[in-house]
Amino acid sequence: MQLLIGSEGTLAVVTKIVLRLLPLPKVQVDLLVPYDDFQAAADTVSDIIAHHIVPATIEFMERDSVLAVERLLQKEMPHHDAAAHLLIQLDGHRREAVDADYEVVGELCLEHGARDVLVARDQRTRDRLWEARRLIIDALNDESPVNHMEDVAVPRAELPPLLQGIKEIGRQRGVRVVCFGHAGDGNVHVNVLKDGIPDERWETLMPTVSEEIYRLALSLGGTITGEHGIGATRRQYLPLALDDAQIELMRRIREAFDPNHILNPGKIFPG
Amino acid sequence: MQLLIGSEGTLAVVTKIVLRLLPLPKVQVDLLVPYDDFQAAADTVSDIIAHHIVPATIEFMERDSVLAVERLLQKEMPHHDAAAHLLIQLDGHRREAVDADYEVVGELCLEHGARDVLVARDQRTRDRLWEARRLIIDALNDESPVNHMEDVAVPRAELPPLLQGIKEIGRQRGVRVVCFGHAGDGNVHVNVLKDGIPDERWETLMPTVSEEIYRLALSLGGTITGEHGIGATRRQYLPLALDDAQIELMRRIREAFDPNHILNPGKIFPG
Repeated sequence: MQLLIGSEGTLAVVTKIVLRLLPLPKVQVDLLVPYDDFQAAADTVSDIIAHHIVPATIEFMERDSVLAVERLLQKEMPHHDAAAHLLIQLDGHRREAVDADYEVVGELCLEHGARDVLVARDQRTRDRLWEARRLIIDALNDESPVNHMEDVAVPRAELPPLLQGIKEIGRQRGVRVVCFGHAGDGNVHVNVLKDGIPDERWETLMPTVSEEIYRLALSLGGTITGEHGIGATRRQYLPLALDDAQIELMRRIREAFDPNHILNPGKIFPG
Repeated sequence: MQLLIGSEGTLAVVTKIVLRLLPLPKVQVDLLVPYDDFQAAADTVSDIIAHHIVPATIEFMERDSVLAVERLLQKEMPHHDAAAHLLIQLDGHRREAVDADYEVVGELCLEHGARDVLVARDQRTRDRLWEARRLIIDALNDESPVNHMEDVAVPRAELPPLLQGIKEIGRQRGVRVVCFGHAGDGNVHVNVLKDGIPDERWETLMPTVSEEIYRLALSLGGTITGEHGIGATRRQYLPLALDDAQIELMRRIREAFDPNHILNPGKIFPG
């Protein structure tokens, strides 16, 4: 299964999928947790997982993403000046088990210096806590209709240097970069905004910024894409991430499945 | 990872493994649950999983395996005349969570007609509950030093017809067959005992019995081996489980990794 998943249609056409279904969780608790410091938020995530608790989601938003939503909605978001927010969703089958997890997670957040722990147990409050997260893309598109998204991933513990490095690349290249993503997976959605940058400069700037972000993620033991895939856009960068022997082996596996190169040609493999 | 795992050394030599460690569970509860009917035990397993509870292990033993241990130890085992036993191990990080799971599991067992639910919370009681399971192989070897083990697997819901069919094969072929295994995985360890069968008859009988067991497992949507692998012993039976196109694709993947056929030659692929 792992061979086909992520092969981007280059190995097979899937004609049938048998799904293993899990019952929908009956109980859900959502937490919005503001921090003055991204490192503290990242430390909390590691600590939650070290406590054997597996939340359904641990999302993070950095300040610039929350501020963009504020400007879109023209209203103040809770703790809008916090350096970072975590959004943690706990779920399960039994109220007591989820509550026990929630107690531990709440305490860990505060121990790591969270400003507050906002809790949602019903759909209306939940929608309010998730409002900023859900509107980030809209807010960024509204401010800069042209923008570019990367989705590098690193081991969870390397999220703080990744975030810091990405912001630094933005500063050095004179371009606005706004991040949010999946803290539990170490996966960051990096939005590079064109804003008022002239077209010509943007065309040369954007690949430079992307490559710097890829190299940073790789230097931290990560990967150039967590969810979005290599496809056509990133195929020329694959040799940054994999050596010749690895790419050659991948080509040979493709050859085994698709000797006539009829399955999604032109994807993944560099020129 | 899934491509290499189970490839039995035919695709690569592993030189480095990075393990993701989980903290050892702090709390453990073990249950030994006797049933008068294997179907009821299997239904309990499905119901436990439908309740979103994931035990560390759910083992089963059929009566003949417990009786063999009794003869070895020359003492009476608890509920030795039960048709089947489940051994369920629950673990976790927090006492309350494990206890909550244990309450639900215990009730489900009784609802499905378990005779009793024997509980172990300390190592001494735990060792007593697991004694029969740990000694099955010794007991069978003691009674029949020559025997043959298969390890077919089927979807969990098909365990009862699999067990029933295996016992029937044994009766028809005049050979003693004793089963135990991993009820949570649908994986059955089938022990075919030579007992007093003459060597010559055993040599022809054993492959027949094995093939009948494989065909039964496949007819129930299962596989000819759950854990033990194809290796050299089962490679002539691979075409029962996979069609020509599937085996040819596996050969081509092996070719991609090992064009010189130096990695564990002679394994997996039929003649």
